[in-house]
Amino acid sequence: MDKKYKRIIYLQDKPREVAVKEILAHFNPQREFEWMDSSEALGRITAEPVFAHNSMPHYHASAMDGIAVRAEDTFLAHEQNPIQLKRNEDFIYVDTGNEIPSPFNAVIMIENVDEIADDVVEIIEPAAPWAHIRPIGEDIVQEEMLFPQGHKLRPVDIGVLLASQTTRIKVMKKPTVMIIPTGNELVMPSENSAPGKLIEFNGTVIASYIKEWGGEPKLHSIVRDNPSEIKEALLQAVDSSDIVVINAGSSAGSKDYTVHLIEELGEVFTHGVATRPGKPVVLGKINDTIVVGIPGYPVSAYLALEWFVRPLVCDYLGITEPKRQRLKVKLGRRIVSTMGAEDFVRMTIGHVNGEYIANPLTRAAGVTMSLVKADGMLIVPPDKLGYEQGDEVELELLKPVDEIATAVVFNGSHDLTIDILSSFLRSELKGAKIISSHVGSMAGIMAIRKGEAHIAGIHLLDPETKEYNRSYVQKFLAGGDVVLYPFLRRTQGWLLPKGNPLSIHDVTDISKSHALYVNRQKGAGTRILFDLLLRENGIDPEQINGYDREMFSHLSVAAEVKGSPSAVGLGIYPAAKSMGLDFIPVADEEYDLLMTKAFFESEMGQQLVRIIQSEAFRARVEAIGGYSVVIDPTPVFY
Amino acid sequence: MDKKYKRIIYLQDKPREVAVKEILAHFNPQREFEWMDSSEALGRITAEPVFAHNSMPHYHASAMDGIAVRAEDTFLAHEQNPIQLKRNEDFIYVDTGNEIPSPFNAVIMIENVDEIADDVVEIIEPAAPWAHIRPIGEDIVQEEMLFPQGHKLRPVDIGVLLASQTTRIKVMKKPTVMIIPTGNELVMPSENSAPGKLIEFNGTVIASYIKEWGGEPKLHSIVRDNPSEIKEALLQAVDSSDIVVINAGSSAGSKDYTVHLIEELGEVFTHGVATRPGKPVVLGKINDTIVVGIPGYPVSAYLALEWFVRPLVCDYLGITEPKRQRLKVKLGRRIVSTMGAEDFVRMTIGHVNGEYIANPLTRAAGVTMSLVKADGMLIVPPDKLGYEQGDEVELELLKPVDEIATAVVFNGSHDLTIDILSSFLRSELKGAKIISSHVGSMAGIMAIRKGEAHIAGIHLLDPETKEYNRSYVQKFLAGGDVVLYPFLRRTQGWLLPKGNPLSIHDVTDISKSHALYVNRQKGAGTRILFDLLLRENGIDPEQINGYDREMFSHLSVAAEVKGSPSAVGLGIYPAAKSMGLDFIPVADEEYDLLMTKAFFESEMGQQLVRIIQSEAFRARVEAIGGYSVVIDPTPVFY
Repeated sequence: MDKKYKRIIYLQDKPREVAVKEILAHFNPQREFEWMDSSEALGRITAEPVFAHNSMPHYHASAMDGIAVRAEDTFLAHEQNPIQLKRNEDFIYVDTGNEIPSPFNAVIMIENVDEIADDVVEIIEPAAPWAHIRPIGEDIVQEEMLFPQGHKLRPVDIGVLLASQTTRIKVMKKPTVMIIPTGNELVMPSENSAPGKLIEFNGTVIASYIKEWGGEPKLHSIVRDNPSEIKEALLQAVDSSDIVVINAGSSAGSKDYTVHLIEELGEVFTHGVATRPGKPVVLGKINDTIVVGIPGYPVSAYLALEWFVRPLVCDYLGITEPKRQRLKVKLGRRIVSTMGAEDFVRMTIGHVNGEYIANPLTRAAGVTMSLVKADGMLIVPPDKLGYEQGDEVELELLKPVDEIATAVVFNGSHDLTIDILSSFLRSELKGAKIISSHVGSMAGIMAIRKGEAHIAGIHLLDPETKEYNRSYVQKFLAGGDVVLYPFLRRTQGWLLPKGNPLSIHDVTDISKSHALYVNRQKGAGTRILFDLLLRENGIDPEQINGYDREMFSHLSVAAEVKGSPSAVGLGIYPAAKSMGLDFIPVADEEYDLLMTKAFFESEMGQQLVRIIQSEAFRARVEAIGGYSVVIDPTPVFY
Repeated sequence: MDKKYKRIIYLQDKPREVAVKEILAHFNPQREFEWMDSSEALGRITAEPVFAHNSMPHYHASAMDGIAVRAEDTFLAHEQNPIQLKRNEDFIYVDTGNEIPSPFNAVIMIENVDEIADDVVEIIEPAAPWAHIRPIGEDIVQEEMLFPQGHKLRPVDIGVLLASQTTRIKVMKKPTVMIIPTGNELVMPSENSAPGKLIEFNGTVIASYIKEWGGEPKLHSIVRDNPSEIKEALLQAVDSSDIVVINAGSSAGSKDYTVHLIEELGEVFTHGVATRPGKPVVLGKINDTIVVGIPGYPVSAYLALEWFVRPLVCDYLGITEPKRQRLKVKLGRRIVSTMGAEDFVRMTIGHVNGEYIANPLTRAAGVTMSLVKADGMLIVPPDKLGYEQGDEVELELLKPVDEIATAVVFNGSHDLTIDILSSFLRSELKGAKIISSHVGSMAGIMAIRKGEAHIAGIHLLDPETKEYNRSYVQKFLAGGDVVLYPFLRRTQGWLLPKGNPLSIHDVTDISKSHALYVNRQKGAGTRILFDLLLRENGIDPEQINGYDREMFSHLSVAAEVKGSPSAVGLGIYPAAKSMGLDFIPVADEEYDLLMTKAFFESEMGQQLVRIIQSEAFRARVEAIGGYSVVIDPTPVFY
C-alpha cells in the first residue's frame, strides 16, 4: 500500500443540488461546432438559429393537373354561359408542381376543362384568384427562422431543412467524455473470469448513457489501482476530452486514490454528497477539464452519472435536461429513510384494482437488477424520515406508464414456468406482460390481500392436514373475492453438488454430515416443507449448519450449492438441472395460482387460463422435467 | 396520359382503426433474428427471453479490503477480550473483489485489524456471518430471466448482460422498409431546383421516422409518374423488403397509379380513410409484402406513416407502439370539424396565468412548418362537429410538457429582433425559450386580453392622434394589468424588385402604375399604415391591384415581391435586405412590447428587460440596419 495516499478522510454531506450548481459554474469547455449535411443531422443539436435558405415552394406552383388562367377572365362562366379560352393566350396546360407564370393567377382542374378544339377549351365555372395554386413561401418563407439554437432535430425538421434547400447545418459537436475504469479485480467482458476477477461492465454502461444523452464516449482500458498509472491516465484524458469520468476509487478508503490525485493535479470541489446510494462522489477539475469520480457499485455509479455528468453534457450542447414523467402512487410498504440524505429507492409499480401500488426493491447499491426491474424511483428528501404504508407519493417513472398500467403483477413463489407463461401471453396478446417479484408463497397471499398483485404463485403445505394451499387461502382470504386455480404438480428435492460427495439422501443425513444447508426465507413454501421434514424427524434447526441464512429463490439456492462442495439445498428439479447439480426427489407438491376474482374474470385472466390449458404450453412445461400441468381443473372461489 | 389508368374512382371513408386492424391481420412477414455482442445491443429488441449465463458475483467476493475469517471464531471478541488470529490458519488477507474460500465466511475491514506480529492480528469486535461478503448471485443468479422477449435494451440492461457474462444476445432483425418517392416534379435535395422542380424531402423524413421506430429504411431513387416504371420499382421492392412505402400517387386522380398497380399486382384492402388530413391512403399487399401508399403533402404523409407503418414495424419487432403523453388544455379558439372524419389539428400550447391554452395552427396539409411548430395534436373524433372556445380538451403532446410549461409565449406582430431576443435569452437562462406566432398587432392585443400570451409585439398607428400603440392599449386593455414597454424604432418602407423597374416612390405611383401590391392582413400594423396612406392620398382600395390578397409577415411580402417583377409591398428594411430587394423608407414607427404585468415582474420578464438594455443586444440589433433600441424607457402600466 502506498503510504502517501493512506490517510483516511471523511466524506462530505454536500446537498446534491449545491454540488451540481458548483460543478456547472466551473464547467467552461471549449465548445465546438460542426457543419454537416442536413439529411444526416437527425438527433443533432443546432448551434445557432437556423434560417430558411429558400422559400417552399420557391415559385407559384400548381397544386393540380389542369390549366392556368387569369381568374378575371373566368368570373362570368357558368353552365348557361360557357367561356372559351385559347391556349397560350388565355391559358396554358400545367401539371401538379409546374410553375404558374405571370399573368396567370388561378388553376382549373383538368376534370373541369372541356377540350372543344385543338388549343381551345371551354369552362363552365369561374376560378377564384389563386385557386389551386401554392404561392411562394406557402410552407416556408426564405429567411424565416426555422429553429432556435439548442434545438434537437427531429425527422420533420430534416424535412423543412431540405424543403427550403438549407442543405448544410451548423450543429454542436458532441462533447467527448473519457471513461476510465479502475480496479485490480476487473477484467474485460471478453476475458475469461476466474474467481477473484470481476467483469468490467460499468464502463460500457456509462458509455451507453453518454451516447443516449448526446455525448461522444471514449472508453479507456482498465487501469490498475496504482496511483501513478491512474495519474497518467487522468493527465492524458483531461487533455483530450471535454469531460472525464473515473469509475471507482472515489470514496475515502486506503485505496481510493481519486480524490488525492485530483487534489494533487488540480482542484477538488466536492467529495461526498448527501445521497443514498451514491454518496462517495468526487467532483473536481484538472487543467480546466471537469473530472467526475463516481462510485464502483453499479446503482451508485449510474445515479451519480445522471446527477453530475448529464447536466454537463446538456450544458455543453445548450439544451435542458430531459425530465422524467411522474406518477402518483400508493405505497404498498413502509419506507424508512434517514435524515440529512436524499434516498433514491427503486420501486416496482403495479396497477391493481384501479390503483397504482408501489413497492420498494432491494436498496443495495451493488444490485444492478434492482435498476433493471424498477418501474420508478422514489426520491425521499433529506428532511424526511420516510413514508408510511398507504401514503400517496410521487415517483419518477423509469418505464412508460402505459406499460405499467397494463402489466399483470405476479407475486409469491417463484417458478420457472411463470416466465414461459409470460412468453406465451406476450405472443398472444401484443404488449401484455407479467412482472413478477419472488417473495415466497406467504408474502404472495399477503400481496393479494393488500391489493398489490393480480396473481400469486403458492405452494403451502398445511402440516396438520397435509393438504396444499386451500387452508391458507381459507384462513387469510375467505370472502376476499379471490380464486384458487390449480396449476402444477412439481417435484421438490435435494439439490446436491455433482456426485453427491457427502452422500446425502434425507434430512437426517444433512444434520449428521454437518453439510452446509442453503435455506429459504421464512414464508416460502420450500421453507415450510423443510421445517416440516425437520419436525417429523425430530431435528432441532440448531443442528442444521447454515439454517439462519436465507435465500430468496430456487436458483439462488442452486447457485449457492454449486459454489460449495459441502452444501445442500431443497428446491425444484429445473433449478438443479440448469446448474448441473444432482437431484434427489423429496415430495410432489401443488403449485397453484391465486388470483383476484376481477383479474380471473378479465379478458387477460381468461386468456391466461386458455394458454395454461393449451397443448403447446403443457408440452413445453412438461419437457422441462419434474412438472405436470393440472388438466381442466375446477377453480375454487373464496 | 395513359388511358388504362385514367378512370376515376372515389375514395373510401374507412375508419382508421379498422384499416389498421385489417393491415395488421394481413401482415405476415418472415421475422428474422440476429445474434450480436451484448455490448453492441443498445436499443435493440430481444428476440426471446434472456437468461443469465453466469451469476454475479460468480463466487463469494469480498466487499472490502481486510481479512477473511470464520465468524464463529470472532463472536467473543470485544475491547476487554481481544482475540488473536493466525494468518492462513484463522484468516487470510483479502482485497475488494477477492474470493472468500471455504471455510471463511466473514470479512473484517483492514481498518479494524491490528497487526501485532508477523502473521498474527488482533481484533476487538466480532464479525457477523457473511459480513462484507457479496455472496454468489447477490446481484444476478445464473439462469435467472433477465428480460422477456420484446424488451428494448437500455444502458443498464447492457450492464447486467455483461455482468452475467451473457456476451451474445439474440435480437430481432430490424425490418427493412423500402421507401419509393414518385413524381415528375421532384429532384434530389442536392440538385439545383429550377422553377417547376420541387425538392424531394419526404423520402428522407420517412426514412428518419423508420429509423427512430427501430426499422431499417432503404430509400429508392425518385421514380417518374409512369406506370411501368412504378410497377418495376414495386416488384423489386416487395421482393427485397419487409414493408414497402410508396409516396404520392395514392389518391384517385388521373395520375394516381398506386391503387391500380397494387390491384393489378396483388390486393388492395383500403383506399381512403376517414381522416383529415391523410385521407388518400392505399393499403394493400403484393407477393405477401404489405405496400402502403401515402399522400404527397408532407403533413398527410407523416401522419399516415405513423398510423399505418409504425404499427407494422412494432408488430415485426414484437413491441407495443409507444404512446404520447397527453395534456388537458383550454381552447383559445373555436375548432370546427366535419362529421364522419377524424380531424388532426396541430396546436400550439402556451402556459399563461397557470393555464395551458391551446390554439390551432394552419390545417393545410402542405404546410410542414405547422408540424414543426406544433406543441400538440388535437384529434377530433368523427362524431364531433368541433369544440367551442374555452372548452377543455386533451391533446397528444409533440414536445415535452416541461418545455411547454416554461416557454414565453410571444404573439402579435413579427419582428426579426424577437428571434435575436430569444437567442440571447436562451444563452442567459438555460432552457428558456420564446415561442412566437405572427398574427399581427391587433391579434396580439387580443391574445394578451384573452390570456393566451405573455408578450405581444405591436406597432399600431392611431390615425387620429398619429401616436403609436398607447391609445389601442388604453382602449382594449385599460385595467387589465398589462405593461407597455417601449422597445424599438424601426423604418417601414416600400419593398421593391431590384432596380425598381416601375419607378415607384409613393403610394400614388402604386395605383397609377397598376403594380401588383402585396398586402398584409387586417389588424397588422403595416396594413393600418398602408390604409392611412391611401386615405391621406384619397386613393380608393379598389384602385390597388392585389389589395384583397393578404400575407402574414414581412418576409412573406418580401418573398412575393421577389417573385414578381411588377410587385411592390410595404415592410421593414431587414426583410428587403435579406431578399436582395430595393427599399424606400416611408415612416419611422414605434414597435413596442405589450406584456402581462405578472410576466413583466417575473424573473424571466426582468431578465428580458436586462437583455434588451444590454450593450451587446443593442449593438446586434442596430447592426441589422433600420433599427434603434429605445434606451432606458419608462414602462407604462395599464
